[in-house]
This record gives sequence, structure tokens and C-alpha cells, in this order.
Amino acid sequence: MKKPKFRAPKMNIKKGRKSKKNEVPGTLEYTGDKSGLPTKIEVFDYTADYYEYKESNSIEDAFDKRNTKHISWININGLHNTEEIEKLGEHYNIHPLILEDIVDTAQRPKIDEYANYLFIVFKMMYHREDGEFINEHMSLIMGEDYVLTFQESDGDVFDGLRSRIANSKGRIRNNGADYLMFAILDAVVDNYFTVMETISDKVETLEDLLFAQEDTKDITQDIQDLKREILKIRRATLPLREVVNRIEKIDSPLIEEKTSTFLRDLYDHIIQVNESVDIYREMIWGLMDMYMTTISNKMNEVMKVLTIMASIFIPLTFMAGIYGMNFEYIPELQFKYGYFYLWGAMLIVFFGLLWYFKRKKWL
Amino acid sequence: MKKPKFRAPKMNIKKGRKSKKNEVPGTLEYTGDKSGLPTKIEVFDYTADYYEYKESNSIEDAFDKRNTKHISWININGLHNTEEIEKLGEHYNIHPLILEDIVDTAQRPKIDEYANYLFIVFKMMYHREDGEFINEHMSLIMGEDYVLTFQESDGDVFDGLRSRIANSKGRIRNNGADYLMFAILDAVVDNYFTVMETISDKVETLEDLLFAQEDTKDITQDIQDLKREILKIRRATLPLREVVNRIEKIDSPLIEEKTSTFLRDLYDHIIQVNESVDIYREMIWGLMDMYMTTISNKMNEVMKVLTIMASIFIPLTFMAGIYGMNFEYIPELQFKYGYFYLWGAMLIVFFGLLWYFKRKKWL
Amino acid sequence: MKKPKFRAPKMNIKKGRKSKKNEVPGTLEYTGDKSGLPTKIEVFDYTADYYEYKESNSIEDAFDKRNTKHISWININGLHNTEEIEKLGEHYNIHPLILEDIVDTAQRPKIDEYANYLFIVFKMMYHREDGEFINEHMSLIMGEDYVLTFQESDGDVFDGLRSRIANSKGRIRNNGADYLMFAILDAVVDNYFTVMETISDKVETLEDLLFAQEDTKDITQDIQDLKREILKIRRATLPLREVVNRIEKIDSPLIEEKTSTFLRDLYDHIIQVNESVDIYREMIWGLMDMYMTTISNKMNEVMKVLTIMASIFIPLTFMAGIYGMNFEYIPELQFKYGYFYLWGAMLIVFFGLLWYFKRKKWL
Amino acid sequence: MKKPKFRAPKMNIKKGRKSKKNEVPGTLEYTGDKSGLPTKIEVFDYTADYYEYKESNSIEDAFDKRNTKHISWININGLHNTEEIEKLGEHYNIHPLILEDIVDTAQRPKIDEYANYLFIVFKMMYHREDGEFINEHMSLIMGEDYVLTFQESDGDVFDGLRSRIANSKGRIRNNGADYLMFAILDAVVDNYFTVMETISDKVETLEDLLFAQEDTKDITQDIQDLKREILKIRRATLPLREVVNRIEKIDSPLIEEKTSTFLRDLYDHIIQVNESVDIYREMIWGLMDMYMTTISNKMNEVMKVLTIMASIFIPLTFMAGIYGMNFEYIPELQFKYGYFYLWGAMLIVFFGLLWYFKRKKWL
Amino acid sequence: MKKPKFRAPKMNIKKGRKSKKNEVPGTLEYTGDKSGLPTKIEVFDYTADYYEYKESNSIEDAFDKRNTKHISWININGLHNTEEIEKLGEHYNIHPLILEDIVDTAQRPKIDEYANYLFIVFKMMYHREDGEFINEHMSLIMGEDYVLTFQESDGDVFDGLRSRIANSKGRIRNNGADYLMFAILDAVVDNYFTVMETISDKVETLEDLLFAQEDTKDITQDIQDLKREILKIRRATLPLREVVNRIEKIDSPLIEEKTSTFLRDLYDHIIQVNESVDIYREMIWGLMDMYMTTISNKMNEVMKVLTIMASIFIPLTFMAGIYGMNFEYIPELQFKYGYFYLWGAMLIVFFGLLWYFKRKKWL
Ligand SMILES: [Mg+2]
Ligand SMILES: [Mg+2]
Ligand SMILES: [Mg+2]
Ligand SMILES: [Mg+2]
Ligand SMILES: [Mg+2]
Ligand SMILES: [Mg+2]
Ligand SMILES: [Mg+2]
Ligand SMILES: [Mg+2]
Ligand SMILES: [Mg+2]
Ligand SMILES: [Mg+2]
Ligand SMILES: [Mg+2]
Ligand SMILES: [Mg+2]
Ligand SMILES: [Mg+2]
Ligand SMILES: [Mg+2]
Ligand SMILES: [Mg+2]
Ligand SMILES: [Mg+2]
Ligand SMILES: [Mg+2]
Ligand SMILES: [Mg+2]
Ligand SMILES: [Mg+2]
Ligand SMILES: [Mg+2]
Ligand SMILES: [Mg+2]
Ligand SMILES: [Mg+2]
Ligand SMILES: [Mg+2]
Ligand SMILES: [Mg+2]
Ligand SMILES: [Mg+2]
Ligand SMILES: [Mg+2]
Ligand SMILES: [Mg+2]
Ligand SMILES: [Mg+2]
Ligand SMILES: [Mg+2]
Ligand SMILES: [Mg+2]
Ligand SMILES: [Mg+2]
Repeated sequence: MKKPKFRAPKMNIKKGRKSKKNEVPGTLEYTGDKSGLPTKIEVFDYTADYYEYKESNSIEDAFDKRNTKHISWININGLHNTEEIEKLGEHYNIHPLILEDIVDTAQRPKIDEYANYLFIVFKMMYHREDGEFINEHMSLIMGEDYVLTFQESDGDVFDGLRSRIANSKGRIRNNGADYLMFAILDAVVDNYFTVMETISDKVETLEDLLFAQEDTKDITQDIQDLKREILKIRRATLPLREVVNRIEKIDSPLIEEKTSTFLRDLYDHIIQVNESVDIYREMIWGLMDMYMTTISNKMNEVMKVLTIMASIFIPLTFMAGIYGMNFEYIPELQFKYGYFYLWGAMLIVFFGLLWYFKRKKWL
Repeated sequence: MKKPKFRAPKMNIKKGRKSKKNEVPGTLEYTGDKSGLPTKIEVFDYTADYYEYKESNSIEDAFDKRNTKHISWININGLHNTEEIEKLGEHYNIHPLILEDIVDTAQRPKIDEYANYLFIVFKMMYHREDGEFINEHMSLIMGEDYVLTFQESDGDVFDGLRSRIANSKGRIRNNGADYLMFAILDAVVDNYFTVMETISDKVETLEDLLFAQEDTKDITQDIQDLKREILKIRRATLPLREVVNRIEKIDSPLIEEKTSTFLRDLYDHIIQVNESVDIYREMIWGLMDMYMTTISNKMNEVMKVLTIMASIFIPLTFMAGIYGMNFEYIPELQFKYGYFYLWGAMLIVFFGLLWYFKRKKWL
Repeated sequence: MKKPKFRAPKMNIKKGRKSKKNEVPGTLEYTGDKSGLPTKIEVFDYTADYYEYKESNSIEDAFDKRNTKHISWININGLHNTEEIEKLGEHYNIHPLILEDIVDTAQRPKIDEYANYLFIVFKMMYHREDGEFINEHMSLIMGEDYVLTFQESDGDVFDGLRSRIANSKGRIRNNGADYLMFAILDAVVDNYFTVMETISDKVETLEDLLFAQEDTKDITQDIQDLKREILKIRRATLPLREVVNRIEKIDSPLIEEKTSTFLRDLYDHIIQVNESVDIYREMIWGLMDMYMTTISNKMNEVMKVLTIMASIFIPLTFMAGIYGMNFEYIPELQFKYGYFYLWGAMLIVFFGLLWYFKRKKWL
Repeated sequence: MKKPKFRAPKMNIKKGRKSKKNEVPGTLEYTGDKSGLPTKIEVFDYTADYYEYKESNSIEDAFDKRNTKHISWININGLHNTEEIEKLGEHYNIHPLILEDIVDTAQRPKIDEYANYLFIVFKMMYHREDGEFINEHMSLIMGEDYVLTFQESDGDVFDGLRSRIANSKGRIRNNGADYLMFAILDAVVDNYFTVMETISDKVETLEDLLFAQEDTKDITQDIQDLKREILKIRRATLPLREVVNRIEKIDSPLIEEKTSTFLRDLYDHIIQVNESVDIYREMIWGLMDMYMTTISNKMNEVMKVLTIMASIFIPLTFMAGIYGMNFEYIPELQFKYGYFYLWGAMLIVFFGLLWYFKRKKWL
Repeated sequence: MKKPKFRAPKMNIKKGRKSKKNEVPGTLEYTGDKSGLPTKIEVFDYTADYYEYKESNSIEDAFDKRNTKHISWININGLHNTEEIEKLGEHYNIHPLILEDIVDTAQRPKIDEYANYLFIVFKMMYHREDGEFINEHMSLIMGEDYVLTFQESDGDVFDGLRSRIANSKGRIRNNGADYLMFAILDAVVDNYFTVMETISDKVETLEDLLFAQEDTKDITQDIQDLKREILKIRRATLPLREVVNRIEKIDSPLIEEKTSTFLRDLYDHIIQVNESVDIYREMIWGLMDMYMTTISNKMNEVMKVLTIMASIFIPLTFMAGIYGMNFEYIPELQFKYGYFYLWGAMLIVFFGLLWYFKRKKWL
């Protein structure tokens, strides 16, 4: 048995909560681990025939986007700089509790409806180009003609969307902020399918390992880690289902009739993701039973080898032991071919036992 | 232990999603694996006393079927040719998101209601004449006097229906498009029962294998594969239950009162299928426990053989060893019949232990 | 290990479906296995002070029972003769889909409400006098003044009811067709309790077998069969609960106020049956774990015997082996009482090990 | 292994049903096992300033208690005497189906509302002074100014209530029949907590047994019996929750506003009992897994002893065997200290293996 | 195996119930174990610009706080002194059943609405500075301008809140009694996250132990205790979810519109806690399976050592035994290099078996 290898990282079920125990509700504290970089702001302004893009490090560039003549998407990367988030909140008149949820990475997916805007929390999970798995806390505020998105750090799943806005591809430029919100969520959910593929591959790899039965590696911990991983994914996808369902049902002037069809399609996809999660959950839980039978099968084989070796040679040794005795009178010892007769008897016993084990299918 | 055999194919839970990550919603991309053949179109036009059948490779032959004086069934085989599906969609004024669902084989069963038509997605599962198991993504659009069906490729479960239309058998020719839709779904659900029979046979076969206890084959993977298979079937049948339930409840002029009774019958059948799925799910999950006890029983038998052989011959060998010692003075060695007395003692030990194991029911 | 014994019969989850794949919906095909005998018809006509009983083989004797001045119970035994069922259906104006359900033994329990009658499907399970377990598909049509019952074959649970009608015992003769329907269902449900007693006995027998731990029989299959049996019973009792609940709630002139109390009582009983089914389900599922611990306990005992025998005699054999060596100079061999000293040492080792195993409670 | 000990008694899930198979619904038949004693009737009449108590064996003393100027509690002990129950039923105008439920010990807890009274069935579970566990079927009829209670036999949990009525303690004498009903149910539910304590003790005892790992007793059956016991308790407590919930919600002049608060408190308590039942259910189900690991740990220890003994002495025996051979030329045998050199080699092997097993933590 | 260590304390599912069996409902009896100290009363009176704090041991100091011009928080520490609680109850006109719930530590979390106040029961769980885990029964009464809180004993999670009131930090001093109630519950729920972190650490520790596979400690009981602990936590957090949900939905003048947003935030957090509880529940239940595979892996290793040692040396011993026989004529014994030839043969057997086990990956 080798020494314990490096363990998989823990779930951040409650990370950051500790320090906030005695805080005033609504106090902003970033609870994630993606700090250090300056906050980066992207602003897209567009109508069917107008398009402007600005990148900035100053939060003031995200101001004055309400009641303009175009749709604005303001994407903020970096939540650790809570003062800037607070400034933005003041400008857009956002409740402190919402600001708290924006920077609290432990907040579960949810939707809150307000008079002038919708607030949606979700998780962006994807595989970066270099293969690393990213799980970011994200939130979104949608007003009449603007959408604010908040990410923990640089890098996301929206490059396709950016180019569709820039190049007026698809119907994005001819629709309002509600369609922009849909397009963002759609990109997020599309990436959940990719994540599920990775889980699928991991399950198949473990099943193949078990099936090959050659590895001596203990996969108990791998299975337990996979359980933890699927449960973590489920925490992101299951509440999002309710969120999308509620967006579709909301009776708000913020959401146009023609966007409903797209939201229904999004709902289809998030249900599909959740079905996959449930199936892989069952498959993963089944792996432990599968591993158990594999271990038992191996032990069975070990026992058979021992039993066959011992059952054959112990009686033979006994036979040899008989004629190693020093009694004064052992008639067989004086037989001329006694030694060879005994070899004959031993061979009979040997092949007899071989035949017996063969018949039992142990050989 | 043999080398790993060929593994069962994976579930296509999310197949095809990957490439679409950055696409405009409503972009058609066929996600299945049945490409290469030209699209084949079948058109049935009929009333109680009129019948015409046309087979074609040109999508234009499926046009102009609305507001005719007869019922039309247009069956399209082949989804990989997405341009033709798009042309049809334009002609029939179908939403791009629906067209996307038609060609997306990962789409789960569902029903969408529109003003002028119903859109239904389902899975056609059946055993082809040559025994192969087919699982096709299918969808259906039902308008006032037409039904469009979309299959991945040639071959289906509708031959009975075709002949009933052609020969005016049953009530199909005297009913509208709603009854045609029912008849299509009815043929699909009837075949689910056949699929469940196959599952039943597989479970029985594994149970018999376990019961015979002669096989040394490791069936862990077979059980895991069966789990995967029943979960896949469940993904097709469980949402269809809700679909059929909703068709029955829809308050639409598209569905006549007299068809309701037939839809209720269909609902009965899909519930029955789902009950079977649930029962076999439980039986399959139980197989792993069953296998585990079987392995343990076998090991028990192996251990008994070892224990009996070792417990009998180790003491006898010890007895022989005693009189193989070279002490100058071992009185028994000089007894005239010492050797035979020892054989007597050995036989007593031998039969005593045999009797002991017999009493313990180990023999 | 013995050869596989005769296996328990399969579930007919989908029996008969296969052949109907391409049939017109509403085509009558008997899917059970109780064919061969002629259809037998019993007709009871009664009011409070009128009683007539007729037994016949001609379906025409079941005609003209609507809008008479008495209550009629027409009990039809034999479903394989589908033409007669069709004739009856025509006379009573019954929908072909209902006739199909009547002869389809795979149909699950359900209730359908029509303007002039109720249609109820259920399963009659009971133990015949000769001990055989009978599971019959049954259905019932209740109109204003008549009840039609359909059984697969002769023999049922209604002898008590027959005599109560004949002898005007209880309140049956003073009530309408709704009370007759209740009385029929009540007799069916009362027999479910008897069936559950048999399950209870089987569970107890298996538990006792496991507890005795003497039997070498492999009961894995028995447990799996019991699982299958309880799941089959559950398929009959669980949907019937919803059926009875709905009868009680139906707002139909067919059911009189005063019968409601009796229907509520029936509902109590079917709930009670279902509770028993759930409890025995849990007990049966627990049997497999119980069996597993039993096997492990047995193996533990086998291993102890081996360990004790080997641990005692292997060291002793080694000691004897030492003095069986042929070194020229082994001082102990020349001791006068060397042999006896060795025996002393051996006895010390022997009893020392015995004491050790005793202390470990392995003896 | 010892002989099977006396088994725990069976559940009476359906006891008594058998004989009633062909009975008229509403036929009274006592299905319990507490027969033989004469029926005993207790009558309490009271108002705030009036109190009378009568004990009798004649059912007529329970008559004429309606529309009196005081509250009456008539407690009937003994259900086997069904004629007396029928007489009472006639006098109080009670439906035969209710009378049937009163004497049917298999009836599950329920509430039936009638115009002039409420009918409640429940189970009284408690530990008698002598330690025996009692599970009695009980029922209660509450009218405007009277409460009838029916017990299987003498002995109950109402002594505190009796003395509070007699001594005008608490608020019982100042309230109506509804408060009396509450007080009766409250005493019953309070005793459920005591029953759960016993279950708790049994679980702890089994856990301690498993933890000590010294006992060779097979506790498989004890765990299975505990499962049966908790399931039986659950059958009494779970439906009572719905009963109490419904009493609280009933809109009847029989229940005064001020009693509602007390009923809500009762509901709190029955929920608490059911939570305990669920927790202990999980703990008990977990015991089997716990037992399984305990057995495996024990077997591990047995195997270690065998492996250590065999691994040490089999090689040593081989070494001795080498020099017990009779080859004409074995040079080592002529070495002067050959014997002692061998002993040296043997000790090295011996301690080397000991060190190896020590390092593996098997010693 | 060591002697049983000290066991973890039991759940107090029903503690204290026993003694109350025959009590009048509404009788106050403290059922916890934190007695002995005098009751300590803290009174905070405040408005936006007024603040007074008083600490006292006399319950009279908690009187006359209704309809004052400021908000009052009266925090009572110590429930064993039931007379004082009763006095307070009389002064504030509180129903005896509420007082009973205040001192009954077995009462589950709940909310009761009354005309003039809300009554809320919950559990305060936290880790004291010295590391001890505290689980206190707490309750709260909120009227128009006062909040009464009842704790079992000194020490709580409200120090942050106290300083915010004293120093007018946050919005507490500008809000009413409803916000004070929210702030109290918020501090309680924030500490649940800390408790879940401890559970998380325990699970990780056990997983690491299992992964290291070096410890011989039996962790069966640790897992069972962890199950009990998570179930106990779940009993506190699950009903609180419903409580918070209902506070948010209450239509009462006691709760201002602006407080709703804060209550919704609190609801988010309690849902998050419950999700964590469910996840850890699954992980803990999985630990037992994980432990089982670990034990089996260990046994497998033990068996391999035995099998290798025995399979190698038993045949070799047999070979030596052959030439230890005393037959008069054994040709090999006279070969000059017979002894060395045999050693050659033995080495071949030895390395052949080593190679065999190597190929099987047992070495
Ligand atoms: Mg994990
Ligand atoms: Mg979660
Ligand atoms: Mg699915
Ligand atoms: Mg699943
Ligand atoms: Mg699975
Ligand atoms: Mg598991
Ligand atoms: Mg599983
Ligand atoms: Mg599979
Ligand atoms: Mg079913
Ligand atoms: Mg099932
Ligand atoms: Mg199962
Ligand atoms: Mg199972
Ligand atoms: Mg399992
Ligand atoms: Mg079965
Ligand atoms: Mg039950
Ligand atoms: Mg159950
Ligand atoms: Mg179970
Ligand atoms: Mg179980
Ligand atoms: Mg199981
Ligand atoms: Mg039990
Ligand atoms: Mg609970
Ligand atoms: Mg529980
Ligand atoms: Mg448990
Ligand atoms: Mg458990
Ligand atoms: Mg289990
Ligand atoms: Mg515990
Ligand atoms: Mg978990
Ligand atoms: Mg969970
Ligand atoms: Mg478990
Ligand atoms: Mg688990
Ligand atoms: Mg398990």
C-alpha cells in the first residue's frame, strides 16, 4: 500500500461564512479565491444598426446605461474589489443584500424579482482551453435596456455571444435586454453538457479499470471523490431549473412575449442536464457495489490458488512423511520397488485432485 | 481472468452538444449517427374514400398539404440533411427552435402547443427484423389536416399503420389528423412492450447464470450495462407519460372529442410501460446484491475444501513427523506392530475429523 | 452445488403485447393462458323480494338486462372467446377500447367513467381450496340497474356474496347496483389480506432458515423470486387504491349517498393492504443483507477451524521436523529422555495455543 | 452455533381478516387476542362543580348520556363481547361499519366525521408497570356532551386523567367533550415517547454489542426484529399524524375555538414522535451494514493469525526437512556445528518475518 | 481489539417526556440539563437616538416593556427556574402551552402566530471559544415593540448584534422589533454554517483514515455516531426552513414591508444549510460502503501473503520429504550430486512460482 496521495479539493459549501458571523447583514465580503487582479469592465452598447464596445478598469464606465436608446451589456470581471461593486450598486440603486449575494460565492442559484429589474444567481462551469475545470459564481441583473453580469475573474463562455453581437449574427441585435439575458444563460447551460461529458468519461474510466481487474490501485477514494463532484454539480444545476422555470412564468413587462419560446427551449436543456446528473449519480453510486464484487472476485481467485496448492501437496507430504518414519518394522520399506510404487500412488492422488478441481471449474 | 471484452456503447446523453456551444440558438445541426443516405419522403393523402401514396427524395413533394380536402401524412426519413428540414420549416412556417429540436437527437420527449399545430418529440425503440435494437429520435407536427413525422433514418414500426391506411382497415380513414397522430404514437408505445420483454429476458438470463453458479465469468459489467440500458429506456418512457397526459388534457380545436377515448387508452399503456421499467429497475439493482452473495457462497465452498484438507492432513503429518525423529530412545519405534498401531491411530483421527465435518454439514 | 432447480414463473408484465404490435386499436385479443373451456354465464336478477338465478353457456342470456325492474348481476367466466365478448359489447353499447381492456390481462387496475356506466379493471388474487394461488384479470361494468363482471375462468371469491343474494342475508337485496359493485370489490380486497398472509409466511420461513444457519441451500434466488412476487402484488393493489378513492369521489347519479360509507370502508381496507405490501417489501429487501451476514458468519467459522488446526499443528510439526534432521551432532538426540522432554514441550505449546484461542473466544 | 431461540412474535398486519372473507360488511368480529374477561364499563359524569363515577359490567349503564347537563366519559374495556358493542351502537345510533372498525384490531388509525359525532381510531402503546409492552387497538366517539372510548382490555394510560377529573385538577372540569377527547389523545401520544425511548435503548445496546466485538452471538435476527418493530410503531404513529391534523382543521360546532390551541400542541408532539421514528428507522437500517463490517473485521483478525503462523513455520519446517533428507552426500550434515548454524539461520528467518509482520501492523 | 471506549452521548429525542406522562397539559417542566445557575436577564431599550442596557437577576425588570416609545429586547438566560418564566408569562399574557414549549428542550422548531405576537422555537448550535459544541433550545416572542428571547443558559451567538445595537452600527437602531427578530435568527443561521464545517472536517478525517489504510482502529462506531449527529442537526435545520418561509409569508402588521427582503435573504441561507446537510448525509452514508471495501482490500492483502508463502514452501517441503523417506532402494539418494541436483530443482520451483505470482500482480 502506498502513502496517501494528494487529495481532491474540498467542496466550498460554506466557504467564507465563518468570518461573517458577526457582520451586519448586507456587508459585502468576497468569499471566493480569485483575487489579486484589477476589476475589468466590458461594455457593449448596441441596437439593430449601432454597435460600440469599450473595455475599462474604471467602474464609472459602467454608469449611465439606463434609459438610453440602446441595449447595454456591462460585464464586470472581479468580485474581490467590493468597493467598486458598492459604487455600482449605489449608482444603479441596488439593494445591499443583492450586492452581498453577488460577491458571496456560496450563494445558491436563485432569482429575485424587483420592480425595475430581475436578479439571477447561477454557476458558470466549463473547461478552459488548457483543460482546467472552472466553476465560477456568477450573477446577472437585467433592467429594461441593460444587463449587468458579474464574474469572479477573467475568462468565460461568452466568446460566441460577443462575436454575434459584434457581427450582428443571429437575432441578438434585433432583440431587447431579455433576449440578451436568455443568450447569456443559454451559453452557460450549453457548457453544462460538456461538464457532464467529463463526468461520463470518468465513470467509464473507473468501470474499465474495474473490468480489467488488473490494477491494484485502491479506487475507493476516486469513487467517493466522484460522488462529491456530481453532488457539487447538482447543487448548481438543480436550483437553476427552478430559476429558468420561474423566468418563463414571470408576468413582467421586462420580458417580451417573443422571448418566451427561447426561454422554454432553455428550460428543456436545463431539464436535460438534470436528468443526466441523476443518471450519473445512480451510476456512480453503483460503482462502489461494483468495486466490492471485484475485490471479492479477486479474493476468490487468491483463495483458489491457495486451496489447490495446499490440498494437493499437504496429502502428498503426509504420504512421504509416512515412509520417513523410523519404525523398526515397516514392511513397505523393504519392497524392492516400494519407492516407485509410492510415486505411483502419489501421481494417482495428484491427478485425482487435479481432476476434482477441474470438475469444480476451479482450474 | 480474461482480457477485457468489447464494452457496450455509451449513452448519448449529450452527444453533439459540444460542437454547438457557441452557436446561435435555433441553428440546425444533426447530432445523431445515421447520416449518408438521401432524405426519403413518403406522402399519404386520404379521406374515407380517397387514397394516394407518393414516395420521393425531393422535399418539395411535402409542400402544399395544408387546407386541402384530405388528411396528409408526410413522413420524412433522414435528419442529417438539415437544409431540406429548413426548407420544409420555412414552407410550414415552423419556429427555428422547433427545427433545432427535430434534428437534435439528445432532445428529450416533450410536447409544445402552438396556435395552429402541436409539436411532439419522442423516441422510437424497436427490434428490427434482423434482431438489432434500434433507438431513433423522432418528432411529429400535427396541424388541422396534416401530420409531419421526422425520423433519423429508414425503417420504423408503422408498417401496420401504412397497410391500414392503404386498405381502409379499422377507423383510420374515417378520422382526422388527430387520430392519425394517436395511431402513430400507439404504434410506438406498443413497441416499448417488446423492448421491455428483452430487458426481462436479460434479467432472467443473468439470474439463471447466478443461480447455476457454474460460470466463472465476471458479470459485474453486465449488470452495470443493464443498469445503463434501463436508465436509457426510462429517459424515453418517463417523459412520454407526461406528454401523452398533456395531449389528452389539451383544450384545442385540433383534437376532436371522440379521439380522447383513444388517447386515454394510450395513456394507460404508457403508464403500464413505466411501471414495468420501475419494476425491472428494482430487479436489476437487486442483481448486484445477488451476485455478491453468489461470490461469497463460492468462496465459502473454496474455504471449506481447504479447511477440510488441511485440518485432516496437517495433524496426520505431525503424527508421522513424530516417528521420523532420530532420538536415540523412542520406545514406540521398537514395538513390533508400532507402525500398524500408528496407522490405527491415524485412521481414528481421519474418520473422527470426517465425522466432525459431516456433523457441521461441511461435507 | 446442485443443478438449477425449476425456476419460478415470470411476470406477465407485457404478455400478449407482442402479437398485437400491428393491430387496429380496439382489436380484441385475449392475452391470458386460461383458454379452452366454453364461456359460462351466470345471471342473478333480484329485488328486495324477488330472486332468480340462471346459468348458461349462451351470451344471449346476458342481454336485455337494462331498465328492468330488478337489479341484475351478469357474471361472465372466460375471456378467450372474444366473439362473444364482442356480441355483448354491441348489445350493451360498449366502446371497443373497453372490450379490449376486458380481455387484455396485462391491463392495470383503473376506472373509466362514462355517461351511463362505470368501467373498473382490477385483479382477483386468492388461494383456491386446493392451495393453488390464482391471479385473475377481472373487470366490471356498472350501469343503473345491472353489473357485468368478466373473469378469465371459473372459480372466484364470490361464493359468500352469491349466498347472501340468494338468502337475502345482509343488506344486498335492499340496495342498488352500486352496492352490488361495492360488495364485489369488497370480496376481492378481503382476499388480498389472505395473500399478504402467505407472503408473511414466506418471509418468516426464509428468516427462520437464515436463523437456523444449518441449511446449505442457496436462497438468493428465493429472495429474488419473493421480490418479484411482492412487486407483482403491488402492481395489483397500488393502482386499485386510486380506483377506490375515485369511486368514492365520483359525482354520479349511479352512486347513491348511502353507499358512500361502504366505499369509504373499502378504501380503508385497500390502504391497509398497501401498507402491508410496503412493509413486506422492506422486509424482503432486508433479507438479502441478512443472508449476506449469515454467509459471512459461516465463513468466519470455517476460517476459525482452519486457523486453529493449522496454528496448532504446523509449529508442532516443525518441532518434530527439527529432530528428524540427520546432522551428525545434535546433542538433544542423545539425551536419555530427550523424546519425552520434547513431548513435554509440545504439550506446553499445544495447550498454550488452545488457551490463546479460548481467550480470543474462537473456541 | 446454537439452536434457533424463541422467535419474536409476528406482526398482526391482517390478523382476523381470514375468517371474515365471506361475511356481510358491517359484521362485528373481534380480531384481537384479549378475550375471556367480562366487559368492564367506567362512566364519569362531570361539570365544573359536579362529579360522579360509576363502574359496572352492564352495557346499559352507558346509555342515556346524550343531552344531559354534564359531560360524560364512558370507557368500555373489552371488545370480544360484540353483542354488547352492538347494543351500545343501537342505542347511540352508530353505523354498523363503525362498530366493525371498533372491534377490528387491524384497522389503521383514522378519523371519520359524522353530523353528530367524530369517530377516531388509534393505537395505545405503552409499557405496563411490570415492564410488558402493550399495544392496544383503541377507538373513540365524541358527541356534543359525551365521549365513548373502546379498549381491548383492562389497563391503560389514563390514570392521570382520571385523577384530574376526580380532583378537578387542571382545566378538564371547566371544558367540554372536545377537551376531554384532546386529553385522552394527549395521554396516548405522551406514551409514544416512552416507547421510542425503548427503541432507542435497543439500538444503543446492539451498537454497544457490535462495538465490543466480543460476543459471538448472531444478531442478524435481532436487527431484523427491530426493523419489524419500528415498522409496526410507524404504522400506528404515521396515520395518527394525519388524524390529529384533520381534527385541528375540522369546521364543526363540536370543537370549540379555545380547544384548537391544545390540538395544535398535540399535533406538534405527534410530529415529533414521527421524526424520532424516521431517525431510528435509519439508524436500525444502518445496523446491518455495521454488523457486516464487524464480521469482516473479525475475519480479518482470524486470517492474520493464520497467515502469521503459517508464514513463519512453513518455511522453518522446510528448512528442517532439507536436513532430514537421506542423501548420501549432504556436506552441511558433517559440519561440526551444522545444527547450530541452522538454528541461527532459523532464528534469522523467524525474527525477519516477525519484523515484516510488525511493519505491516499485523501484530 | 481494545475495550469499548467511551461512547458518544445519546440523542435527546424525547428527553424529559417520561416524567410528564400524567401531567396537566401546559405544566412547565424544564427538560434540559443546564440547571443550577440563577436566571440572568438582559434588557436592551433603544430607538434611533436612545440606548439603555440593564443586566439583572430579577424577572420583574423584564416587565412593562409593551407600548413604550422604544424597542426592547429582553433576553432571558436560564429555563430551569420555571416559576420566573410563569411570572413573565402572566405579565405578558402568554398561553401556558407556549410557556411549556419554551422550557421543553425536545420541542422542534416551529412558529405560532397570535393576534399580538409571533412565537418561534429554534435551536442555537455553535462552537464556544473553548471549542465545545453547544446545542441550545431557544425561543422567541416578538410583539409590536419588544422581543423576548429564552435561552437555556449563558453564552450565545449574539455578541455582534449586541455591539451593533450599542454602537448603532448597521440599520438595527433605525428599524423595529421585526428587524431585531430577523437579526437574531440571522446570527443563529450564520452559525449553522460553522457547524457544517465541523461535520465536513469529520467526514474528511474519516475518509483520510480510510485512504491511509494504516490504522487498525475500528471506525464503524465513528461512522454510526456521525450519522446520528447529522440526523440531529437535520432535526434543527429542516423545520426551521419552514419556519422562515412562513415568517416571510405572514400577513401581519407586526412585520413591515422593508423587512421582507431581509427575511428572503435569511431563507436563502437556511436553504443553503439544508442542502449541505443533505450532501453530507449522502457522504456519511457512503462512508460505510467505503470502509467495507477498505476492510476487504486489507483481507485480500493478508490472503495473498498466506497464499504466496504456503504455495511456495508446501511443494518444496514435499520435495524434501520425498528424500527423507527410508525406502531401502531410492536411486537418487546415491547420486553423487543428488543433493545439489535437488537444490537446483527446488530453486526452479521457487523462482517459477515467484514468476507466476509476479505475473498475477500479487507481488
Ligand atoms: Mg468525492
Ligand atoms: Mg445543494
Ligand atoms: Mg434523462
Ligand atoms: Mg440516475
Ligand atoms: Mg446506474
Ligand atoms: Mg451504495
Ligand atoms: Mg447502485
Ligand atoms: Mg450499463
Ligand atoms: Mg407496476
Ligand atoms: Mg419496481
Ligand atoms: Mg432492487
Ligand atoms: Mg436489491
Ligand atoms: Mg446495494
Ligand atoms: Mg423476484
Ligand atoms: Mg404501513
Ligand atoms: Mg415498508
Ligand atoms: Mg428493505
Ligand atoms: Mg435492508
Ligand atoms: Mg440491499
Ligand atoms: Mg423485524
Ligand atoms: Mg427528525
Ligand atoms: Mg431518519
Ligand atoms: Mg441509518
Ligand atoms: Mg443507516
Ligand atoms: Mg443496507
Ligand atoms: Mg451516530
Ligand atoms: Mg454527499
Ligand atoms: Mg445529498
Ligand atoms: Mg449504507
Ligand atoms: Mg453513499
Ligand atoms: Mg451496502
